[in-house]
Amino acid sequence: MDCTTIGKTSMILAMASGEDLDRYLKNAEQNKFRICIGQAGSMEFKKIVAAIETAAINEGLISKKYWQKHALYHACIEAFHGICRGELELGTILRTVGLRFVIVRGPRNVRDTGDGEWIAVALYGHMGAPIKGCEHEVVGLGINHI
Amino acid sequence: MDCTTIGKTSMILAMASGEDLDRYLKNAEQNKFRICIGQAGSMEFKKIVAAIETAAINEGLISKKYWQKHALYHACIEAFHGICRGELELGTILRTVGLRFVIVRGPRNVRDTGDGEWIAVALYGHMGAPIKGCEHEVVGLGINHI
Amino acid sequence: MDCTTIGKTSMILAMASGEDLDRYLKNAEQNKFRICIGQAGSMEFKKIVAAIETAAINEGLISKKYWQKHALYHACIEAFHGICRGELELGTILRTVGLRFVIVRGPRNVRDTGDGEWIAVALYGHMGAPIKGCEHEVVGLGINHI
Amino acid sequence: MDCTTIGKTSMILAMASGEDLDRYLKNAEQNKFRICIGQAGSMEFKKIVAAIETAAINEGLISKKYWQKHALYHACIEAFHGICRGELELGTILRTVGLRFVIVRGPRNVRDTGDGEWIAVALYGHMGAPIKGCEHEVVGLGINHI
Amino acid sequence: MDCTTIGKTSMILAMASGEDLDRYLKNAEQNKFRICIGQAGSMEFKKIVAAIETAAINEGLISKKYWQKHALYHACIEAFHGICRGELELGTILRTVGLRFVIVRGPRNVRDTGDGEWIAVALYGHMGAPIKGCEHEVVGLGINHI
Amino acid sequence: MDCTTIGKTSMILAMASGEDLDRYLKNAEQNKFRICIGQAGSMEFKKIVAAIETAAINEGLISKKYWQKHALYHACIEAFHGICRGELELGTILRTVGLRFVIVRGPRNVRDTGDGEWIAVALYGHMGAPIKGCEHEVVGLGINHI
Repeated sequence: MDCTTIGKTSMILAMASGEDLDRYLKNAEQNKFRICIGQAGSMEFKKIVAAIETAAINEGLISKKYWQKHALYHACIEAFHGICRGELELGTILRTVGLRFVIVRGPRNVRDTGDGEWIAVALYGHMGAPIKGCEHEVVGLGINHI
Repeated sequence: MDCTTIGKTSMILAMASGEDLDRYLKNAEQNKFRICIGQAGSMEFKKIVAAIETAAINEGLISKKYWQKHALYHACIEAFHGICRGELELGTILRTVGLRFVIVRGPRNVRDTGDGEWIAVALYGHMGAPIKGCEHEVVGLGINHI
Repeated sequence: MDCTTIGKTSMILAMASGEDLDRYLKNAEQNKFRICIGQAGSMEFKKIVAAIETAAINEGLISKKYWQKHALYHACIEAFHGICRGELELGTILRTVGLRFVIVRGPRNVRDTGDGEWIAVALYGHMGAPIKGCEHEVVGLGINHI
Repeated sequence: MDCTTIGKTSMILAMASGEDLDRYLKNAEQNKFRICIGQAGSMEFKKIVAAIETAAINEGLISKKYWQKHALYHACIEAFHGICRGELELGTILRTVGLRFVIVRGPRNVRDTGDGEWIAVALYGHMGAPIKGCEHEVVGLGINHI
Repeated sequence: MDCTTIGKTSMILAMASGEDLDRYLKNAEQNKFRICIGQAGSMEFKKIVAAIETAAINEGLISKKYWQKHALYHACIEAFHGICRGELELGTILRTVGLRFVIVRGPRNVRDTGDGEWIAVALYGHMGAPIKGCEHEVVGLGINHI
Repeated sequence: MDCTTIGKTSMILAMASGEDLDRYLKNAEQNKFRICIGQAGSMEFKKIVAAIETAAINEGLISKKYWQKHALYHACIEAFHGICRGELELGTILRTVGLRFVIVRGPRNVRDTGDGEWIAVALYGHMGAPIKGCEHEVVGLGINHI
């Protein structure tokens, strides 16, 4: 699959593994996307927000300027809506989530320059009861201008 | 990427194109997933629900029994939350969406028999103002037991 | 069942029929509850709001004073949340509802005077796809001070 | 009142007491509904979910298979929307709830065989500030295929 | 600005400071509005609800009667929606808020007698990450009959 | 009141009238805020979004670049949450709104340079039943980086 748009690129990287992941990562970086990948599992969203923000700052995807954090934060919250599908709650309604997160910064489409810079947060993992096996897959994607 | 779980399989099929799509489709069908793919663009969710339900019934993924429609309907609504990220509204707040939808029926994980049957609705496309170019990518995934 | 509290009284009246309904209605009126019962089916909430408000005014349960309408309106909206269970949408997401509505005005509990006056809106009926048989029961209850 | 549909049956059982409850319970069981009744009060939904799930498993209404828990879980969450009427929050917005819960498994309508099996969660109780007397009645009903 | 309507009056008082505040306060009191002003900062809404309710009771704006608390509580929750803009969450999604709150009781419009009595909760302050400087302004206004 | 922060400035301008408005407008412009004021009344949010976007483009507050529209659009939607207080619905639940909107572009705080550029949408007006007099005041404020 092609890594030419910021949304598809981030979702593919969130789902790929092994050699696939390496190949797509190289492909995406050739397209000038800046990328950061991590893992977070919790019954509290605040830990996942913190993990994503820390990773993005440490990898240099965003600076510590507030407007950059603001852009990333809202992309996170939008991605959580895909994960939660109706109620932005985890442990409070007795469910937990384990996610790979991928943050991508760059153009919306590598073929389209002059469109400003964007940031995407893609999430892929499993949500369910806090019992092994009682869970199904979930995805979320938030995209924001930065 | 491997098509062994119902969520990843449906999301990959929603994003792949050309030879990739053919290859993943074959892969998924070998894994005993039953699949239906379509396209829908609208400022009204009811048209997208109708398109998905019609496709699923015509392709034989669900019967006309109410509980099967009920399962599919709720998977659709959950996927819409990923697309909308907060407000289940399209034209009413002046935005429109163009989506590829993929419906997959089968086990949660092909390696896990005895877990009942599940249905996934994956959505990938673009949402934005009703003006060409003013849009970004969105994804949604809903999974339900059937 | 006893009709001594405003919520239970309104829910029972929303679900009872035939002689049961007559008996509970008499019981409730002896408890000084003022009651109004109607029927509404629609794919649009605005028609149900209008039917409830019109019935309440015609039956003298509320006056045309704004604060009385305001109290009833918010009780309606709260009851709709029970009906909708997550998204305050009907036809826009391809579902329709047929409801009996019951409006009750009086104390929260007939044994408790000096607690002010309250208004309850109870809804009972069926929600589903706009196809006969594809529907299940729904209830909603909103209670507000007036 | 007649206990021939799964929704009305569960709501009546949630509100009835004393001899009424015994009579409706017998009536419902003759109609082949399987029933489980319990009590839960909390400022946290996770405790109510846990109480309902534990009761359902202990009473044999659902097995430990994930898809059965998944069906029950979503019926719970839908019922909570009726209880909360807008914000799926309890203690976090300084309110508490005391509920009787009723879980019913069986057909949607006892006169309609061949329609699959359904599960209903009915809730009836009081919500309010964590101070005695500052509360009013609430109801919730969630119905799901299983 | 004129303090003749309950909403504008409460919002102005929430934003004014120094001599401006004194002047608007005098103006509002001449218009027979009863007013209470306080400050609350937290990652938990329950603390803000409690601060507002305590202030309103201590200042005599509401009595301890349940219907009066009920009116104030719902005005608070409505104001929080303006503050939160989509998800009624603070610390759970890693954000914090510092607010001035203003409670005003009186007519909707001082020129309009015979319209019943109303209560407004106005909030003005800053919301953001729990790091100094990473925040922007937020407002909220809830108005209810009492 | 001082017009030194983008949120307070936009809210004051949304509520002021006559000479007050002129004075605050001059004050705000001296602080290098770029401002656009308009009026919109409707039972449909899409008309209000369109009015705000058109005004912002015509007055040169944003260009036609997608990321600028994206920033403004999300500020609008956030402001609508304050207006709606729970359900992003107008005519569909039988209510209508008349608003003054104010769009302000500039720094978050005029004393703080180097913090990027922000856009605020402030709304002030009346919401209620589509009958004269049955309405109360509402406010909303959305702030976004641009």
